[in-house]
Amino acid sequence: MMATFSPVNVLTKVDFPVFGRPTTETSPDLYVTGRSCQTAAAVTKCSVRGYGSRVQIRAASMGDWPALWPIVKSVVDAGETYVWRPTPTSEQMRGLWLEPLPWRVFVAELDGEVVATAKVGPNRPGRGSHIATASFIVSPQRQGCGIGRHLGEFAIDWAANAGYTGMQFNAVVETNIGAVALWRSLGFSIVGTVPAAFDHPTAGLVGLHIMYRALATTAE
Amino acid sequence: MMATFSPVNVLTKVDFPVFGRPTTETSPDLYVTGRSCQTAAAVTKCSVRGYGSRVQIRAASMGDWPALWPIVKSVVDAGETYVWRPTPTSEQMRGLWLEPLPWRVFVAELDGEVVATAKVGPNRPGRGSHIATASFIVSPQRQGCGIGRHLGEFAIDWAANAGYTGMQFNAVVETNIGAVALWRSLGFSIVGTVPAAFDHPTAGLVGLHIMYRALATTAE
Repeated sequence: MMATFSPVNVLTKVDFPVFGRPTTETSPDLYVTGRSCQTAAAVTKCSVRGYGSRVQIRAASMGDWPALWPIVKSVVDAGETYVWRPTPTSEQMRGLWLEPLPWRVFVAELDGEVVATAKVGPNRPGRGSHIATASFIVSPQRQGCGIGRHLGEFAIDWAANAGYTGMQFNAVVETNIGAVALWRSLGFSIVGTVPAAFDHPTAGLVGLHIMYRALATTAE
Repeated sequence: MMATFSPVNVLTKVDFPVFGRPTTETSPDLYVTGRSCQTAAAVTKCSVRGYGSRVQIRAASMGDWPALWPIVKSVVDAGETYVWRPTPTSEQMRGLWLEPLPWRVFVAELDGEVVATAKVGPNRPGRGSHIATASFIVSPQRQGCGIGRHLGEFAIDWAANAGYTGMQFNAVVETNIGAVALWRSLGFSIVGTVPAAFDHPTAGLVGLHIMYRALATTAE
């Protein structure tokens, strides 16, 4: 029997290279990401900052919103991965994304430029609060370069450290094959698929996957 | 491609017998419910008002909360089917249950006494708003008598009439075998089960089923 669960409120900060990550690490190579980064255009895009560039993931603050909003807006406007329609206003979206504790919101910076964000929190309150959920948004200009993978790995580690025993995604759009492949490669399985649950702008009604993985709790 | 979905805002009111429902109807008999009502005690409980009693389902109003709160509280306190822990205050729970439009909340009265409640609304906003979700609470003193079944049938019909194309339950506790059997009998399937996602007060960590059924839209 578990005691009532309270996520650990810690400020976690990591700093690691996305480009040129040492091959001795178990993490996959840069270009093995959910979206293939093998095309010439993608390689150009991904290497625009060079292999020596570094990504830093840190806690988001309200002050990050001006940088986050154009990224979030472009992804929500595209309508391929998030349900909001019409796209909320900046103020509405700020409230939806920068949620208060126990939610934790992070940003990924590439050489000091905000390029992605993730949020992690309890999937349900109370008796379901030991299972985390998370959402991710990567700037369309930076997708396919491994930033989502690193944010995903970070979120998994963070949630495990915070004492969550699993992570659940409630609505992964089945046509978002890059995300599905990424989450599979990070240990998630498709628990099930609700058919025709998402109105995709070009594909029509497509399924929403529920995905899950257990977390090895590292907290005391 | 669907247009943006807007649930029909209609006041639906039905009046049908729970006890003594005509056997010519295709609906199952009174005692074939999720919870068995075959024990002597249960039969006494279920027939306490006699077979001639009638259940009326109607839209809930804020004025119903004093009657609903003890019912909701007893079920949430039990901790076997809902995640909230600790049990919210009356005011908090009123806000959680009596949600504004497009949610619709209903109460079931047995001879004028509020004995159960249901809420129906979009499972997600925007691009997911064509799929309904619903929650149900039946007074512990009236469980096992078919009231939940009738509320479930009502909710399904209401959602189909409102134009929803499916109904999804996001978190059916796997030990709540009465509910699982009821929803199966009403056409729902288990899409998948998230393991150990619910901290049950006596069974420990148990799974949460995602259940779904398509709805035959009857709206114009």
